[in-house]
Amino acid sequence: MREKGKTPENQLSDEEILSLQEKDFRLLMLKIMQDIGYKLQAKMDNLQETLSKEIQAIKLKQDEIQNTITEIKNSLEAANSRIREAEERISKVEDRLVEIIDAEQKREKRLKTNEESLRKLWDNVKCTNIHIIWVPEGEERERTEKIFQEIVAKNFPNMGKEPLTQIQEAQGVPYKINLRRNTPRHILIKLTKIKDKDKILKAAREQKQITYKGTPVRLLADFSAETLQARREWHDILDVMQEKNLQPRLLYPARLSFRFEGEIKSFTDKQKLKEFSNTKLALQQILKELL
Amino acid sequence: MREKGKTPENQLSDEEILSLQEKDFRLLMLKIMQDIGYKLQAKMDNLQETLSKEIQAIKLKQDEIQNTITEIKNSLEAANSRIREAEERISKVEDRLVEIIDAEQKREKRLKTNEESLRKLWDNVKCTNIHIIWVPEGEERERTEKIFQEIVAKNFPNMGKEPLTQIQEAQGVPYKINLRRNTPRHILIKLTKIKDKDKILKAAREQKQITYKGTPVRLLADFSAETLQARREWHDILDVMQEKNLQPRLLYPARLSFRFEGEIKSFTDKQKLKEFSNTKLALQQILKELL
Amino acid sequence: MREKGKTPENQLSDEEILSLQEKDFRLLMLKIMQDIGYKLQAKMDNLQETLSKEIQAIKLKQDEIQNTITEIKNSLEAANSRIREAEERISKVEDRLVEIIDAEQKREKRLKTNEESLRKLWDNVKCTNIHIIWVPEGEERERTEKIFQEIVAKNFPNMGKEPLTQIQEAQGVPYKINLRRNTPRHILIKLTKIKDKDKILKAAREQKQITYKGTPVRLLADFSAETLQARREWHDILDVMQEKNLQPRLLYPARLSFRFEGEIKSFTDKQKLKEFSNTKLALQQILKELL
Repeated sequence: MREKGKTPENQLSDEEILSLQEKDFRLLMLKIMQDIGYKLQAKMDNLQETLSKEIQAIKLKQDEIQNTITEIKNSLEAANSRIREAEERISKVEDRLVEIIDAEQKREKRLKTNEESLRKLWDNVKCTNIHIIWVPEGEERERTEKIFQEIVAKNFPNMGKEPLTQIQEAQGVPYKINLRRNTPRHILIKLTKIKDKDKILKAAREQKQITYKGTPVRLLADFSAETLQARREWHDILDVMQEKNLQPRLLYPARLSFRFEGEIKSFTDKQKLKEFSNTKLALQQILKELL
Repeated sequence: MREKGKTPENQLSDEEILSLQEKDFRLLMLKIMQDIGYKLQAKMDNLQETLSKEIQAIKLKQDEIQNTITEIKNSLEAANSRIREAEERISKVEDRLVEIIDAEQKREKRLKTNEESLRKLWDNVKCTNIHIIWVPEGEERERTEKIFQEIVAKNFPNMGKEPLTQIQEAQGVPYKINLRRNTPRHILIKLTKIKDKDKILKAAREQKQITYKGTPVRLLADFSAETLQARREWHDILDVMQEKNLQPRLLYPARLSFRFEGEIKSFTDKQKLKEFSNTKLALQQILKELL
Repeated sequence: MREKGKTPENQLSDEEILSLQEKDFRLLMLKIMQDIGYKLQAKMDNLQETLSKEIQAIKLKQDEIQNTITEIKNSLEAANSRIREAEERISKVEDRLVEIIDAEQKREKRLKTNEESLRKLWDNVKCTNIHIIWVPEGEERERTEKIFQEIVAKNFPNMGKEPLTQIQEAQGVPYKINLRRNTPRHILIKLTKIKDKDKILKAAREQKQITYKGTPVRLLADFSAETLQARREWHDILDVMQEKNLQPRLLYPARLSFRFEGEIKSFTDKQKLKEFSNTKLALQQILKELL
């Protein structure tokens, strides 16, 4: 047992202890017992200290964590209240957007109404106009009113002088391009009465060719840009219907009318004509690729 | 004390120990003391191990928590920066909204100006028009200009032929409904001079009844839709004022004028009339429920 | 060693122990050894209990922290999903804004087109008008048409009676201010033909002074408010160019034309004139501070 006992008291071998005087043995016993108590006590103290230190460190760390968590909670609360605020701002913005879109739709409607009204006004203002287009041969610079009078006198000798004295206005349409040879000239004649304009345009349609100083001249009704565009959009359909003998006509301001299955049909736009033609196979055949 | 001491050394009773040979007692003492040391040491080691394990587990858990907290902090930081970004986007959107609303108000103003301008233009274009309404008896299909001339000739024989030669335009107002019997017909006559229109409408107002081929005919001034609506809104007030002898008149384009407390008052809209009537008890009485 | 050993067994001094009977010594030894075991065991139990309690408290606290962290994680997740939602709402709002701004730009364009169209319509409607301004001397209340006829007859005796029979409309321009003495009067005459208006205004420009009943009268073309404003903006430049003999002219509707370096130049707005003048030092000198 020498290897285990290392205290100086245990350095005595069993034999030596057995040979000790009774008095020495007793003193040794007391000493050994005291030593055992002290040693174990010291070890226990050491253990307690070590563990307490560890526990203390853990507690400190735990406090630290607790503080961090409190900070995080505060930070999270702050974030949540910013989110709440942001959400409220978004809601307000969304409400505003709804109002704006609503107001926009109303304005859009009014804008359309105004555009329609403007178009009608222009058509109204232009309703007594005759638009004359031709390519002049020479450098002639005659007064526009004179040109119109000459065209009417030469081409419609039966028209009489009456409408001509009523010409309200005659102006060259302004344009940028130079007055080179072969450049078409445009003249706008404002008559006083719609009736006179209708009479002249009807006569022009019935005559094969109108001429001014030998060159062909076109006499056209004058429309607002929008009406003109709307009328142009019917042109290819008009041609096809003419071929098929549907007696198509372009009514004022831009309405297509034609005879189909014994009835006169009229349409203000292609969409409506398409819907109608979808129910009539024969018409659909004729108009295919044009709608 | 036998129940407490359980080690084999203690299995010897006190009496047996007292009766041991000196040598055996000494060996026993040494043995017991060694055992006490070993046993307590083992217990202490065991305790240390147990507690250390627990502490180790706690520390691991603490590290884990610390990691989680670090993650949370990062996550929170990321959230905060998303919030910041969102707030900036909201601010931009709000700024844009202010700009849009500002631009809208300006456009709204221009739109109103345009509407007002259009209304004035229409009124201007229509200012030489006379609007004729009657319910035709038969299937007559006379030319509109002829109808007007006949109405004037029959009803205003003193008018002379002068204005009639100046008729600029005469058109049937287009309408959808069939030309059934008892359907009112509308004709629009465009005269050349406002003066002539005024003369005819004044004569029409002064005459009890105007007729065309025996049926009553109404001759009216022609206004833009908006002016017409504005004039209509005065009608019930005009009737009541007529009853009360306030000499009400509807001025161009849609202004109400009447005599009150010896003075001529005139108002462009009901709101202004209401404000005025709020200060005049007698007027308020007359107009109650009409404003 | 008396100060350290405090158990009753140790109260015996070493000498007393040495003088004990063998039997008593042996019993004392057994007692002391038992006591050491019990005492250390108790201390160890106490230590274990103390530390275990501490560890238990730490674990409880740790569980608590763990729960708090779980709560925080949930809360953070909720916050993140609110942020995500908010971001989506913002994105939608931003998309809407882009659409709105896009639609606004289109509407803005249409609004401008309408304004331009309205301006042209007004100019068109007003193109046969003559605007007469003068400060009446007396309380004369003659009919507007008569006033115009008298002005033409007195000031342009060579004009002949022809245009006068074509007066379409003559109206006093309505205005708020009282008809006090020295207040300018405005009259608007609508002729039937542009040609007649041009003839009269040309004659008016060529004559030094036009008078009506002895007081000076101004005869002006009638324009839309916008065209009038656009023309007014050229006035100071026109004056300076006149001084410098550049033969400036104000063309219809509001175009400035002048002769420079042997060529006729014309500009629709100041910006374009400015750009041109930036390349011509002489012109820049003349126009400095006017552009």
